[in-house]
Amino acid sequence: MSKKLTSRAENYSKWYNELVVEADLAENSAVRGCMVIKPYGYAIWEKMQAELDKKFKETGHQNAYFPLFVPKSLFEAEEKNAEGFAKECAVVTHYRLENDPDKPGKLRVDPNAKLEEELVVRPTSEAIIWSTFKGWVQSYRDLPLLINQWANVVRWEMRTRLFLRTAEFLWQEGHTAHTTKQEAIAEAELMNNVYATFTEDFMAIPVIQGLKTESERFAGADETYCIEALMQDGKALQAGTSHFLGQNFAKAFDVKFTSKEGKQEYVWATSWGVSTRLMGALIMTHSDDHGLVLPPKLAPNQVVIVPIYKTDEQLEAITEVVNGIMTELRSKNISVKFDNRDTYRPGAKFAQHELQGVPLRIAIGSRDLENGTVELARRDTLTKEVVALDTLTDRVEGLMTEIQDTLYKKALDYRDTHITEVETFDEFKKVLEEKGGFISAHWDGTAETEDKIKEITKATIRCLPLDGKIEKGICVLTGRESARRVLFAKAY
Amino acid sequence: MSKKLTSRAENYSKWYNELVVEADLAENSAVRGCMVIKPYGYAIWEKMQAELDKKFKETGHQNAYFPLFVPKSLFEAEEKNAEGFAKECAVVTHYRLENDPDKPGKLRVDPNAKLEEELVVRPTSEAIIWSTFKGWVQSYRDLPLLINQWANVVRWEMRTRLFLRTAEFLWQEGHTAHTTKQEAIAEAELMNNVYATFTEDFMAIPVIQGLKTESERFAGADETYCIEALMQDGKALQAGTSHFLGQNFAKAFDVKFTSKEGKQEYVWATSWGVSTRLMGALIMTHSDDHGLVLPPKLAPNQVVIVPIYKTDEQLEAITEVVNGIMTELRSKNISVKFDNRDTYRPGAKFAQHELQGVPLRIAIGSRDLENGTVELARRDTLTKEVVALDTLTDRVEGLMTEIQDTLYKKALDYRDTHITEVETFDEFKKVLEEKGGFISAHWDGTAETEDKIKEITKATIRCLPLDGKIEKGICVLTGRESARRVLFAKAY
Repeated sequence: MSKKLTSRAENYSKWYNELVVEADLAENSAVRGCMVIKPYGYAIWEKMQAELDKKFKETGHQNAYFPLFVPKSLFEAEEKNAEGFAKECAVVTHYRLENDPDKPGKLRVDPNAKLEEELVVRPTSEAIIWSTFKGWVQSYRDLPLLINQWANVVRWEMRTRLFLRTAEFLWQEGHTAHTTKQEAIAEAELMNNVYATFTEDFMAIPVIQGLKTESERFAGADETYCIEALMQDGKALQAGTSHFLGQNFAKAFDVKFTSKEGKQEYVWATSWGVSTRLMGALIMTHSDDHGLVLPPKLAPNQVVIVPIYKTDEQLEAITEVVNGIMTELRSKNISVKFDNRDTYRPGAKFAQHELQGVPLRIAIGSRDLENGTVELARRDTLTKEVVALDTLTDRVEGLMTEIQDTLYKKALDYRDTHITEVETFDEFKKVLEEKGGFISAHWDGTAETEDKIKEITKATIRCLPLDGKIEKGICVLTGRESARRVLFAKAY
Repeated sequence: MSKKLTSRAENYSKWYNELVVEADLAENSAVRGCMVIKPYGYAIWEKMQAELDKKFKETGHQNAYFPLFVPKSLFEAEEKNAEGFAKECAVVTHYRLENDPDKPGKLRVDPNAKLEEELVVRPTSEAIIWSTFKGWVQSYRDLPLLINQWANVVRWEMRTRLFLRTAEFLWQEGHTAHTTKQEAIAEAELMNNVYATFTEDFMAIPVIQGLKTESERFAGADETYCIEALMQDGKALQAGTSHFLGQNFAKAFDVKFTSKEGKQEYVWATSWGVSTRLMGALIMTHSDDHGLVLPPKLAPNQVVIVPIYKTDEQLEAITEVVNGIMTELRSKNISVKFDNRDTYRPGAKFAQHELQGVPLRIAIGSRDLENGTVELARRDTLTKEVVALDTLTDRVEGLMTEIQDTLYKKALDYRDTHITEVETFDEFKKVLEEKGGFISAHWDGTAETEDKIKEITKATIRCLPLDGKIEKGICVLTGRESARRVLFAKAY
């Protein structure tokens, strides 16, 4: 069914690429840099979507849908945003193909079907959405406007990797408009919090909430909040961002409202997003050399049952018991699949489910029937236990929580032991090279120093942690005064 | 809040356009032919999606995601499909914008960032999906492959209308691969049936299932099944299609499997889709001159409660009762919204909810509190009744079914009285002009006659009904022999 994966120790990057493909999550497509998300990978993404969508609605947001294309004149309206995305955008210039007169059976762009104005395939939707918001906002009574969109976006990245960086990816993008600066900042913070809660409670991935430095900010934002996770190879991964956009887009698109006092004012904005990149974070946080490891809350199948049998009669007897088990487990909202395919042997099934990260495997054979037991195998710890049938449902239910918690604690423990405070640049480089992880260091607050450190070490400032202690010190590179420690890391 | 709509009798097309905008369903965007789906419209679409997705999964399909772009060389591989879509496709030719040296602050396409091969924005995904399926199918054990995708697609239509015909629209597209012709045909029929059940039971729209003629078939299909609905102006609307693709795409993309007998064979294919066009069908089937009318199963809010009060004390007393009502209704899975906005008067709220098609409105004032009653207003019949509080939940629950049924029956009655059998072409033209609807007529089976009738009358063959009686006759136009009656209509 599947070949053995390269181990993480041998080649982490190769391990990741192999796992994504072998576990049937995604694959490269015929289109440069674009991926195909396969059914198993998509089922995990759907679970993330459903939970996030619930959280967005609980916090008062509504879904809507805006055009895929952004006319060039709108795209360029907010200058910083345009500058940030112009270098990597797909541009539609024509609206028709015609038969190629020189090559029978081939098509070519019809030169007579050139668009008057080029259309940019959205790399993000602030421009098209704010040009729309202009028509939606007149009075303070129309605010706040709390909108979310589930969509595909395109950024023409030169070096791509499945889930982590692809030319097209799926995401959600929230776009909100408010009467006051304070309210917009509170919204940006709230949504960053929603992301943090989601990644920690649902994906079992601990994150650090923080602010980006000016050079790492979203193009067009006044402030970018983020959640940063740490992968098993000691590299950080930005898992979500939430931006306070000030009045930049309101001014670029002339979106004003009449206040209670009858004054015309520009509205205040936020935007926030997470993407299929979360799949990469998920894989690199929990998985091992055997394959994917899924927290139960994200597993398309939380439990898989594999029958061990030689004869049809044995399978029949097992099936009867399994039907009872499935009914009970489903009544507890546990998703379970009976893998009774007769085209594969149990060993091949075990390997497949291990590779695909099913949290719990139940094996049941004829001897088990006699003993009134089954064998449980946990994916996270790779341990097995024999459980009596009459306590099975309780045990499985308990394990769902236990596995989720174990994965979170393990990731948290790794993360917490990989935040190192350093005082000198030598220490900085040594820790980065030998241990990796987050480096908590003093920085003089200038973009030059940030650039210099990046140039020398490839580490970037991941964030100014929101709960970081404010403590004066000396910049590790320049020796100048520093107001606080920030977190550096190499990052995806 | 909203101006009065143009009436259907006065100008049906204008009525439709106004309703879509005034009911806050969608609006035109800054991008030619592309719409913005507003939160209220999107909430209805989400209800459709959820139900369809459930049905697809129940019939064994899995969701996946394929690239937005189709390289030109793949796009042109299946000739008929390419020919059918080449004339209306958006083409990406460049992957970067740069500062325009002649116009400060403006951008232009970077001539150095021309793609080696143009990318077509998918108008439909057969090409990209079948180029992927090639890697997924080796043996009969890999089949059937039952895949669905929720996605946006782009067809560069010249004349667009909100929901009915837009350059970009949202849809789902199923793509399946099978070992035998029979199995693929059965799948195409099954999914056409799923669509019919969905539109009838969920959207309360009666449909006729049928086969398309060769000239109306999907480009690249051997057979196209469809569901055809009838709008209130007597025009038909194709609400969904399911295609038997034969081995056309398997051959174009060389997708073969090893059969049980060890032979290499091309696989058999289907594809099927419904889109945001269903929103147009929904609106034009049920709505009236007062605005949208929603079947309860599709209504984002099934019930809205409007308090009638003068003082804060009155509102407080009403709110207490309303809270109890809401808890009870929600326990019956009825969605209910308490419209206690103090920025609008009851009359304005009534008008808004009527315009937006909320199936049931409850008004509750101080006198109602004294009497232990509320006033119910049905959107479908525009009738009111006074109901005692202690029977309210039962009555509302009953009305949810009753309104759904009433809408369906009304639409069915209209449809059934608008299928007219004609024997001569004069009759054909007279009925088409004076009454509209479906015309059941004999046709000689040739594309020439079909074209001629279309040219003269603008009516097309909507379908060869699956349950139509097979009865020989004389073609209305040519007098030649005809094997069966087919359904003609003018159509959206």
